[in-house]
Amino acid sequence: MAKVDIGKKILGANEVYAGKNRELLARHKTPCFNIISSPGSGKTTILVRTINDLAGSIRIGVIEGDIQTDIDAERIRAAQAPAVQINTQGACHLSAAQVNRALEKLPFDSLDIVFIENVGNLVCPSAFELGENGKIVVLSVAEGDDKPAKYPAIFAKSRVLLVNKMDLLTGGAQVDFDLERVRADARKLNQGIEIFPVSAKTGEGMQDWYDWLTNQVRALR
Amino acid sequence: MAKVDIGKKILGANEVYAGKNRELLARHKTPCFNIISSPGSGKTTILVRTINDLAGSIRIGVIEGDIQTDIDAERIRAAQAPAVQINTQGACHLSAAQVNRALEKLPFDSLDIVFIENVGNLVCPSAFELGENGKIVVLSVAEGDDKPAKYPAIFAKSRVLLVNKMDLLTGGAQVDFDLERVRADARKLNQGIEIFPVSAKTGEGMQDWYDWLTNQVRALR
Repeated sequence: MAKVDIGKKILGANEVYAGKNRELLARHKTPCFNIISSPGSGKTTILVRTINDLAGSIRIGVIEGDIQTDIDAERIRAAQAPAVQINTQGACHLSAAQVNRALEKLPFDSLDIVFIENVGNLVCPSAFELGENGKIVVLSVAEGDDKPAKYPAIFAKSRVLLVNKMDLLTGGAQVDFDLERVRADARKLNQGIEIFPVSAKTGEGMQDWYDWLTNQVRALR
Repeated sequence: MAKVDIGKKILGANEVYAGKNRELLARHKTPCFNIISSPGSGKTTILVRTINDLAGSIRIGVIEGDIQTDIDAERIRAAQAPAVQINTQGACHLSAAQVNRALEKLPFDSLDIVFIENVGNLVCPSAFELGENGKIVVLSVAEGDDKPAKYPAIFAKSRVLLVNKMDLLTGGAQVDFDLERVRADARKLNQGIEIFPVSAKTGEGMQDWYDWLTNQVRALR
């Protein structure tokens, strides 16, 4: 069996569950975003701040993907949002089937939006559709400004790029990062991508992200 | 065909080439290390500084693995070291077969050590032996101190952990990172792992890493 056929079969089986997830989310009129990044770019911190800052206006549920541990789901629950933890036991990305089982555990009647935090990996998760309404890629300024050029697939496929840890540029540290290079390289791959420079730690720039999210929720109502 | 059998076949084919690489490296009495980390943790910057600081004592050759671009190989060549670029065209890790073709292009007669810089990915590369003498995992302090717990495989398999960007802790930035937690979690997975906190930018801590490397070269002579 040729390598490409194996790949097609795996992706085909995944697509069946992605379709089921799309139907389930449409039935609940709940937008769902798949957040993808390298390990440690700040996905969970962004979610925790977003949950806290939007408390009372947008109700957020989270599916947490990790190889192991439930550290991230515990952080989400501490922010008073429902979280379902998936442990992939070594696998480098979430599958639509795993997400399907997790979606069924979420209390949709009391949710306005669902985030799926994928396994920390800038490569593999971009190849697996989960039935989401869009992908969000997070890049920390500490990772360097060459990442859209070197890891193009996820930047080409995402609706939003959150450039996180902007506080490292404005603080006392010496971080070399050219935001304009990132903008230019990301837009070359994806003309429509929304780019929000933020710091989930200080709150800098988060309002533009909240406005975008709020519009996504309104569009489905 | 069950999923586990496909995985075994791919890993089995990889092992044939890993064996060839081991033989080739042993014939040249040249130690070879496979450097693995998340994107943007500073693998290339560590290599460039190591090449410059050891110039005249240890001669270094590099195999660069990237999904696309030859940005990293150009940085190595600018430091006057031979570099062979592998572009994986989307694949999330280097295979031993790719490394075998690259090794044949290196000028072993004028080299004391070979580094393989893997694709930036903290998950997949840990599963593919390349025939190396050991794995080196790099973790940037900006990625957070929970990474050994959340991505255990590579920490369990590595001979050395370089904790990079230590300058972000000692500078003016507010980075939350508990080095003792990282040490404890990494040693729980791997009692013998050598841990060197470094900054490839400022040079802080690099001498311990150079001493370790020098010992590896001497041991094979």
